Amino acid sequence: MEYFGRVLIFIALVLPYASVSEATCGFETCPKTRLNMINVHLVPHSHDDVGWLKTVDQYYYGSQNKIQHAGVQYILDTVVQELLKDSSRRFIQVETFFFAKWYSEQSDTVQQAVQKLVAEGRLEFTGGAWSMNDEATVHYQSVIDQFNLGLKYLKDNFGDCARPTIGWQIDPFGHSREMASIFAQMGYHGEFFARMDYLDKRKRLGDLGMEMIWKSSEALKNSEIFTGMLYNHYSAPPGFCFDINCQDAPIIDGDSYDNNVAERVDGFIEYIKNMSKSFRTPHIMVPMGDDFQYEDAEVNFKNMDKLIQYVNARQSEGSQINVFYSTPSCYLYELYKLEQTWPNKTQDFFPYSSDSHSYWTGYFTSRPTQKRFERDGNHFLQVVKQLGVLANLTTVQQSENLENLSQAMGIMQHHDAVTGTEKQAVAQDYDRLLSEAIVGAESNARDALRILTNLTSGAFESCLELNISTCTFTQKSANNVVVTVVNPLGHTSTQYVRVPVPKENYIVTDEKAREVPSELVAVPWQILSLEHRPNDTQHELVFQATVEKISNFYIRILPVPKHFSDNSVYDSVDTQNSIGHANDEESSELVVENSLIKLVFDTTTGVLKTVEMNGITENIQQSFGIYKGFRGNNGEAQNRSSGAYIFRPDGNIEILSDKVELSVYDGTKVKEVHQHFNEFVSQVVRIYDGINRVEFEWLVGPIPIDDEVGREIVTRFTTNIASNGKFYTDSNGREMLERDRNKRENFDADMTESVSGNYYPVTAQISLQDDKKRITLLNDRAQGGASLRDGELELMLHRRLLNDDAFGVGEALNEEQYGTGLIARGKISLILDAASEIPNHAERSTQLELHLPFWKFFSKSNNVASVKRNLLPDFDVFPRSVGLLSFEKYDQNQILIRVENFNSIGNVVSFNIYPLFESLDGKEIWETTLDGNLLLSEMKRFKFNQDSSGSNPADSDYFYAPHRPLEANSTMEASQFAVTLVPMQIRTFIIKQ
Amino acid sequence: MEYFGRVLIFIALVLPYASVSEATCGFETCPKTRLNMINVHLVPHSHDDVGWLKTVDQYYYGSQNKIQHAGVQYILDTVVQELLKDSSRRFIQVETFFFAKWYSEQSDTVQQAVQKLVAEGRLEFTGGAWSMNDEATVHYQSVIDQFNLGLKYLKDNFGDCARPTIGWQIDPFGHSREMASIFAQMGYHGEFFARMDYLDKRKRLGDLGMEMIWKSSEALKNSEIFTGMLYNHYSAPPGFCFDINCQDAPIIDGDSYDNNVAERVDGFIEYIKNMSKSFRTPHIMVPMGDDFQYEDAEVNFKNMDKLIQYVNARQSEGSQINVFYSTPSCYLYELYKLEQTWPNKTQDFFPYSSDSHSYWTGYFTSRPTQKRFERDGNHFLQVVKQLGVLANLTTVQQSENLENLSQAMGIMQHHDAVTGTEKQAVAQDYDRLLSEAIVGAESNARDALRILTNLTSGAFESCLELNISTCTFTQKSANNVVVTVVNPLGHTSTQYVRVPVPKENYIVTDEKAREVPSELVAVPWQILSLEHRPNDTQHELVFQATVEKISNFYIRILPVPKHFSDNSVYDSVDTQNSIGHANDEESSELVVENSLIKLVFDTTTGVLKTVEMNGITENIQQSFGIYKGFRGNNGEAQNRSSGAYIFRPDGNIEILSDKVELSVYDGTKVKEVHQHFNEFVSQVVRIYDGINRVEFEWLVGPIPIDDEVGREIVTRFTTNIASNGKFYTDSNGREMLERDRNKRENFDADMTESVSGNYYPVTAQISLQDDKKRITLLNDRAQGGASLRDGELELMLHRRLLNDDAFGVGEALNEEQYGTGLIARGKISLILDAASEIPNHAERSTQLELHLPFWKFFSKSNNVASVKRNLLPDFDVFPRSVGLLSFEKYDQNQILIRVENFNSIGNVVSFNIYPLFESLDGKEIWETTLDGNLLLSEMKRFKFNQDSSGSNPADSDYFYAPHRPLEANSTMEASQFAVTLVPMQIRTFIIKQ
Repeated sequence: MEYFGRVLIFIALVLPYASVSEATCGFETCPKTRLNMINVHLVPHSHDDVGWLKTVDQYYYGSQNKIQHAGVQYILDTVVQELLKDSSRRFIQVETFFFAKWYSEQSDTVQQAVQKLVAEGRLEFTGGAWSMNDEATVHYQSVIDQFNLGLKYLKDNFGDCARPTIGWQIDPFGHSREMASIFAQMGYHGEFFARMDYLDKRKRLGDLGMEMIWKSSEALKNSEIFTGMLYNHYSAPPGFCFDINCQDAPIIDGDSYDNNVAERVDGFIEYIKNMSKSFRTPHIMVPMGDDFQYEDAEVNFKNMDKLIQYVNARQSEGSQINVFYSTPSCYLYELYKLEQTWPNKTQDFFPYSSDSHSYWTGYFTSRPTQKRFERDGNHFLQVVKQLGVLANLTTVQQSENLENLSQAMGIMQHHDAVTGTEKQAVAQDYDRLLSEAIVGAESNARDALRILTNLTSGAFESCLELNISTCTFTQKSANNVVVTVVNPLGHTSTQYVRVPVPKENYIVTDEKAREVPSELVAVPWQILSLEHRPNDTQHELVFQATVEKISNFYIRILPVPKHFSDNSVYDSVDTQNSIGHANDEESSELVVENSLIKLVFDTTTGVLKTVEMNGITENIQQSFGIYKGFRGNNGEAQNRSSGAYIFRPDGNIEILSDKVELSVYDGTKVKEVHQHFNEFVSQVVRIYDGINRVEFEWLVGPIPIDDEVGREIVTRFTTNIASNGKFYTDSNGREMLERDRNKRENFDADMTESVSGNYYPVTAQISLQDDKKRITLLNDRAQGGASLRDGELELMLHRRLLNDDAFGVGEALNEEQYGTGLIARGKISLILDAASEIPNHAERSTQLELHLPFWKFFSKSNNVASVKRNLLPDFDVFPRSVGLLSFEKYDQNQILIRVENFNSIGNVVSFNIYPLFESLDGKEIWETTLDGNLLLSEMKRFKFNQDSSGSNPADSDYFYAPHRPLEANSTMEASQFAVTLVPMQIRTFIIKQ
Repeated sequence: MEYFGRVLIFIALVLPYASVSEATCGFETCPKTRLNMINVHLVPHSHDDVGWLKTVDQYYYGSQNKIQHAGVQYILDTVVQELLKDSSRRFIQVETFFFAKWYSEQSDTVQQAVQKLVAEGRLEFTGGAWSMNDEATVHYQSVIDQFNLGLKYLKDNFGDCARPTIGWQIDPFGHSREMASIFAQMGYHGEFFARMDYLDKRKRLGDLGMEMIWKSSEALKNSEIFTGMLYNHYSAPPGFCFDINCQDAPIIDGDSYDNNVAERVDGFIEYIKNMSKSFRTPHIMVPMGDDFQYEDAEVNFKNMDKLIQYVNARQSEGSQINVFYSTPSCYLYELYKLEQTWPNKTQDFFPYSSDSHSYWTGYFTSRPTQKRFERDGNHFLQVVKQLGVLANLTTVQQSENLENLSQAMGIMQHHDAVTGTEKQAVAQDYDRLLSEAIVGAESNARDALRILTNLTSGAFESCLELNISTCTFTQKSANNVVVTVVNPLGHTSTQYVRVPVPKENYIVTDEKAREVPSELVAVPWQILSLEHRPNDTQHELVFQATVEKISNFYIRILPVPKHFSDNSVYDSVDTQNSIGHANDEESSELVVENSLIKLVFDTTTGVLKTVEMNGITENIQQSFGIYKGFRGNNGEAQNRSSGAYIFRPDGNIEILSDKVELSVYDGTKVKEVHQHFNEFVSQVVRIYDGINRVEFEWLVGPIPIDDEVGREIVTRFTTNIASNGKFYTDSNGREMLERDRNKRENFDADMTESVSGNYYPVTAQISLQDDKKRITLLNDRAQGGASLRDGELELMLHRRLLNDDAFGVGEALNEEQYGTGLIARGKISLILDAASEIPNHAERSTQLELHLPFWKFFSKSNNVASVKRNLLPDFDVFPRSVGLLSFEKYDQNQILIRVENFNSIGNVVSFNIYPLFESLDGKEIWETTLDGNLLLSEMKRFKFNQDSSGSNPADSDYFYAPHRPLEANSTMEASQFAVTLVPMQIRTFIIKQ
């Protein structure tokens, strides 16, 4: 009976997924190749940016062609038409955003035709995420989400056979190891890309290293993934661009004076012979496409047909070139079958430089407010997803709202969105898209919280401008305001809540009407004097909150106040007049401290000079620096300008470490030092009682350009730690990579640009240490960062430039708002600790807390309305190092849960997911690939061997899933719900209710 | 039996033509219209220049897209695809050259699909000639030929139902009455065009005169034809160009922030309402297309579909705009059904001006050598066609050779070919095309002449450089050379033959070995000193020949010559030393005369001053003049440059009438005065014994530009004839039109450019007269001409300019050869006569003789080889005013004959065609429309009424053929083969053998 039940269950489990069998999803539709020939896999593709010079809809519809000729609707219209004409033709579709929009507009007839094309392997989804995400500035959570989204769309519409198996990251400006790791965890066979440091590429061309096996995780087993670097960008061979956007000659095979068949065939064969010298096998892959090509696919295919025909016709004269339409998966399948070995790779592909003056390290920071807004979007998305599950939101409108936000976040991951490398108008459209999606999702949150709390008609407004201490909801009065705090983390968390309020005498209470200690803190005058900021709220009410999942806090004005108690209101105290905790009158030091941390400022200069925490004391000078942006005409390499992509400082940094004005805000729970560096740089340095980090809340802008010089602003932390050239940066918010100043893994880099060439993407963390001490900076958005001298860390905060860098965007990165340079604000947290592994558990958990802090919803109520805790499952079953990465509706009656061991080293952790399963009324649970769309038990990956591993292929042809997948149902014993996680492992489950 | 036979014959006659019945070829496939609405006929079309900025093949294949984005193969590929998707879609195909090339490359499947589209009226041929010919610089013979060619192709491939019925002359730069007349004679219902003097158009927009009834011939009855001027060039409404080459917004109807349906529909309706104010009926025609559009037809149709959908959707809200796909024929059918009246028009639409400084009168002369070469091409084409019939050439190669030349000539008629308004590289490609076609056709001529003469292995070489007195064949020696003279005219003709020869003592004999008087004439030194001219032949052997159709002449060197007889060699005699026929030594006059003509030159100035002929004496000063070409930046009208299209002189003309060097060549049969005007202008003034005209053979070039000034060279004839502002120019070589200086038929012209604005195309003749005398100039190629003062005529001969005129060609008209300015040579014939009708018979027959003079073939032979006269039919049955316009193979066993009464006034002439029919072994003969492809009895044309004729439509709905068509067979009596021709009438017959 048990056995029988298991079988039944297995069937039930498999049912939601189309069966993935070799027979229907294998490589039998791949083109035939020929022995003893160079087999040329032509891969027709179109690289369709999800926004760049035009907005996503302008690209889709083909409007604003004066900016760029591009219309994706026509690409798909005509490609499908052309594919239908000839079964040998192939095309790969990459960006699911565009595909989904297009597919929804098609008639049944066209949809059926597309189904057939997909089923027959003629239209192959490659990549397949919502967009082709950037790899430097994205957070792994959002990458996983957007693959989840894209692959789910494909699965829902085309079944498992349509599932992409190849990563196609052809345009991102450098490549992260985490991305490769995500591909491996999704079961992809390999990935291809087209950008690599030009010296790295040169070397690889010479030593047959263009294709390699990348060990994409230090922590995870079986994370090796085949990685191929394309030969000629992602473009057709020079002269063979058969596209309306190109001017290469067509194949002229008619009775014409211009007949060029012989000449074109000669040229192509020459190219192929040259190209094949840089590759190891008798197969080479030639992408046939480029940005927004195939708008008139007839032109492309007609000429490619002729090219294939006439090149292959040469075989009868002894030519050994065999050309045919193919796809990346068919190409990789051929390589796999050769059972040969490949060079290996362990680090990542940052930074990317395309010539000796063009390090693509500017975009790590470009558009800092957009980069932050993208994080806000993710933050809210996670909150709304969780609330949707908890409240079981099921209406069409609710699904649509959530879908919209998911999609907007998918778009934001695009390598010209979160990167900040789009035109200004496009940036504004991204803002619009994300704002509108957030507004839509707010109604989901409200719907959910009305179910999950007793505030059944609560407003549950979100305030998106809390970073400048304004909130429409509390602007006029914060009396009788309920703050509903949602904690998206898997664990109960203690954080400080700050609510902008007018100056009154407040009391904060919890659900049980117990007073929660609170204090009023003055908002810095630099914020108060921001143009267009309503000036009602000059203070913030700060209180500490400990929240498991959802808690309400009540703010009321006490009727008594004749004059405020000085103890409860903390306005600024100028250090010139009265230094809160100054070390005696003769001292030039300002000390700010609590039980965990002691900060010492030099009152002569005004800058931080010493930090003491975790039992470690270190001289840490912190200040800001200004790089002037190089201005050139971009004609030759040495004339490259600093721009949206490129960071190229002109001369040395100018450090602002003199005459910094200080004010101190000395509260009970929070202590702040407000620093005014100059007219466009200021900062709050802040420590909270019980919080073991120092927060630096910087305010930069408008960056002056009156002297026609663009500027790039960094913050720099200088210590005496003997870091010996080494430092550490995160890869998309997960594993850390060791960086070595002026050095790369595989090649001798061109360090002509010694500053820019040492910049790396910092998505979450940058650290350095010696054998005693280490400092870590945790940031709140992607930034470029470096350690240009031992003991020193810097993060670039903001950029304002006056020249384009001539990589296509065609505009200088000169963000303006209200007629002046854009002002950006953000936070960096510093942790000083004893040397140890990087990151340690404290750093990782702080990272997560900073990444997904409490979300605050605001309502008005005279009554105390409690949270319905009975509706909330118990997440606290997770061990301390296990995080809740995803908790969301996957489908009707299906909930997706991702859990991760967020430590990168240490032990395997185990827990039992049964309590959660049970509290969610689970009927079945199954484990999937990372993206959530393929049964993990069905995942199979090509196994490739590294040169060093010897030439014997391993015993198995495939990598299988690295552990026995969890598949269980409610009739099974709780012990069968055990989940173990090795360090850095993420496991994805779907619970059917 | 007779009756029965007639019926049988009728069937037999009709058989080669698909039946033209209302049921299958009518207007039942036209879109439904709606009452009480503005019916908007959207007409999708692509204007595909048969060469302009790119060569014909570059346009066809879409190569050289950096010059212009255009690929006709893709236009047709994608248009057909799009038409197949929706039966309401329509497209008109205009240029048959491109269509035929494309169709020949298609698979059976595609061809069948196209057949269906054509049969269903979804793909409609409009215009339909090989190219969209120019109307100013073309000769009617070549226009008819290229319609013959295009329409025959369509008939052969698609049957009579595909026959175009609408002229579509949307781009030519002005419109000739003769073109309209040709359309009428081909049975076209009407024609449309898009260019008209801007003030004429402005007036017509205001007074509802955009559509009119054009009386296209003074001489011919029923020559009225509906003529429509398009509203907005031939382009889609501004903002509604849905083409990959445009940047207008698509219709965005999705769920998008950019959704623009309401706005776009508003804009379109607004446009339609405005447009309809300028038209008389509830129908308006809106062309949807432009140059080389529809390369990605999916874009166009997808958006037009949406436009139609959303505009018509407004009808439910009360909109009275009804939009649909349509064609010009369906549009005109709707107008025809309205039975209303229209304004009339009798003159032509020259010159065309697009603003006050842009008279498009430069192209009347641009590229004079190309314009002449085109005439050579026609000349040879007629010769080869005739020889092909006479020798019954039937091999595939021979058909192909002839077809190639016909096609090349079809291409040459294009409005950017013979006009000289193409880029230099394209001009060279036209030269190549025509040269190669002539070379191919030479082998036909050789094949034919080997049959038609006893020179069965004769070389029969043509010499294409006789105009500069060189011929490879006679260069080294002219001994034992047979000159086979072919006379393409319908009548025996007496002309002088000139053969370049080395200086020897020659004798010329005829077939009967009778000596033909001959003399040697020196070639002018300006010719001898031409660079790259082989200098062996410094003389020409001149003899008079009278030829019916073909005659051989034999040239031998007499063995005797010790020293040449001075009587037979005429070298130049400098007038300074010895004036041949000077009026006494004290006189400053040089008189050159023969029995018909007396010329008097002023030896002080060196220019002609008096002419005496036909009993009339008149002071005729003839000289050359130089206009400086205006150089501007083309930014505003007044900055327009003189260029390939535009003639805009800068300041006054400079007349070369001083110090002209003279030499006299005083032969027995020919007398020549060689005039040297300056370093780039010289001339031979020549009279032949027995020839009643004065020949001026001019040599112009290289036009100097060292001073950065472009120049335009004219020849000017100044008389005392009191012409009172009036002069006469031909219309495409047929009827003459009266011109009135500074005046137009319908409107007050802008005469800011008083010279250029008085220029008219002179294809063959320009004349003026008073009540006593008249002078006529007959030219040898199209030129611009004017009478800027009473009694004065000028023709522009050559142009060299340094600026583009910014109408697209993008190059200055600065023709160079051998590294210097192009040299051009040509002839103008002058006739001085008593005042009478213009042209008189003598002028017309001279015109024809100059148009199709003898063609000379050269062979070597020691023997006298005669022509096989028994193989030649007797053409001399034609009355004197009847010309043989065409004599060619139409199809297997079918010969096409066009005869014309070339007089414009006078009586009806009659003749019996039976002898010709009989000598051609005719079995049947039937009469067709002018183009030769439709039984004349099947021709039906819409009848439209003019405003002046009252509003009652005539009794018949159709114009029928203006006479009872000839249909006969060999069993019928000879009297039934009578052919009558009213003045200017052309009748076209096909004789089945």
